[in-house]
Amino acid sequence: MTERPSDPETGTDETNRTTADVGRLVAVGIGPGHPEGMTVRARETLQAVEQIVGYETYIDLLPDALLDAAESVYATGMGSEVERTESAVDRAIDGASVALVGSGDPNVYALGGLVLEVLESRGVAPAAVDFEVVPGVPAAQSSAARLGAPLVNDAVTISLSDHLTTREEIESRLRAVAPEDFAIAIYNPWSPNRAAIFQQACEILLEHRAPDTPVGIVHGAGRADEQTRLLTLGELPEMGDAAVLDMTATIVVGTDETRIWGDRMITPRGYERKYDY
Amino acid sequence: MTERPSDPETGTDETNRTTADVGRLVAVGIGPGHPEGMTVRARETLQAVEQIVGYETYIDLLPDALLDAAESVYATGMGSEVERTESAVDRAIDGASVALVGSGDPNVYALGGLVLEVLESRGVAPAAVDFEVVPGVPAAQSSAARLGAPLVNDAVTISLSDHLTTREEIESRLRAVAPEDFAIAIYNPWSPNRAAIFQQACEILLEHRAPDTPVGIVHGAGRADEQTRLLTLGELPEMGDAAVLDMTATIVVGTDETRIWGDRMITPRGYERKYDY
Repeated sequence: MTERPSDPETGTDETNRTTADVGRLVAVGIGPGHPEGMTVRARETLQAVEQIVGYETYIDLLPDALLDAAESVYATGMGSEVERTESAVDRAIDGASVALVGSGDPNVYALGGLVLEVLESRGVAPAAVDFEVVPGVPAAQSSAARLGAPLVNDAVTISLSDHLTTREEIESRLRAVAPEDFAIAIYNPWSPNRAAIFQQACEILLEHRAPDTPVGIVHGAGRADEQTRLLTLGELPEMGDAAVLDMTATIVVGTDETRIWGDRMITPRGYERKYDY
Repeated sequence: MTERPSDPETGTDETNRTTADVGRLVAVGIGPGHPEGMTVRARETLQAVEQIVGYETYIDLLPDALLDAAESVYATGMGSEVERTESAVDRAIDGASVALVGSGDPNVYALGGLVLEVLESRGVAPAAVDFEVVPGVPAAQSSAARLGAPLVNDAVTISLSDHLTTREEIESRLRAVAPEDFAIAIYNPWSPNRAAIFQQACEILLEHRAPDTPVGIVHGAGRADEQTRLLTLGELPEMGDAAVLDMTATIVVGTDETRIWGDRMITPRGYERKYDY
């Protein structure tokens, strides 16, 4: 945990803010993590706020110029999502302008919802804080971009993490969508203590989709440590020990129509049934 | 259809390009449409390419400075997706560097896949053109941002357009996901000749979800004509004639746990079952 000086809770008021001011709280998605993957609005928001709060790994991904411009940067480690979010909310209730940053989009397995839940739990009126979400490119889309065009039709995102969802719900959702020809983006796909649910997910998918269905795995899309692997659904159960597959990777499972061309996955959009080209 | 001068097909070579050069083709997602919603990489890509190709509505959303920097801008109207994509592909095969722009993300009901399909149809090797996807913020995420945090868990995107997918497939997919507590983002939700499938979609959802399930409709997220409406699933069937609902709007259907706080939709991420805050 790191904290730079000039915390508004000390009561100092270097920005001429008065206690009557309404605080501002922005959940900012920074996209895949490299500075160019951020939207212009995300960058401008981080430049404008007084305080930046986030998971230390995401804070480390931000350009130094942005961090230096903030009065205060508060970074916490993995597993401190609730404490971090509470801190951001309480700073905003105190009247500060605060950005809570995360990778991808605040609405995709991220803290956009927890911010509102914590804000509500504080007993303040919804208007007590000026709340905003600045969307970012989700991992499903930044990963799909590296694979070609695997997600261009109806698609599903499912997380294999059973930390906040039960294993039964995850399996039930996989069973529901596997036969329906959705492209499926799987988040949090593998860790040593999640090996069993990963194997179960593979089995459910293989009950409904052919073993030669194309699958892509992307680790660290667009970052320095990016790794991309194309394989088949039949090969997926063996991937548990592969370096490419960890909790930060995204697996994209193709549909019955998805094919490989060169090193690209293509899920046809359907134009080929109507047009000659 | 508009075309500015210095088309590479004329053989002029103002950029010292030789015919042996490999063309470059980038599918660029510009996000919700306002210039600040674009990623830094999308903007830099559009600045770097020689030619920009796109649907005229999206071209109109680009800053003039970007359009002026291009040697050639080729804009076509609605319904010309295939012709537009063929044009972009053939320019790249001829050696030009070309951006095919679209709103949202190239992997979400967009032309990322058609580019690869057309490229493949031309009989060239995959390496004949340097192909890339620059991801953008999808409409589901830019709309969800305006509504609060309705999509923070497992989610589905389904298009109600039966232009390229059969109506039976759309209904079957809705039936599969409605009971599973996915948040559902519905694209292309309503037009006068799609009224029947919209009504059918409402009926399927109401078979499995309570009439008081929160629903948000966002039209033109982040643009000048933005409209946002919060309602219940029970009210949705009556919305066909509302101005907010057209083919460019996105409907976000909450889960059993989604609630309204102030003017925000919150789908709890699940932390409240494990933590006190």
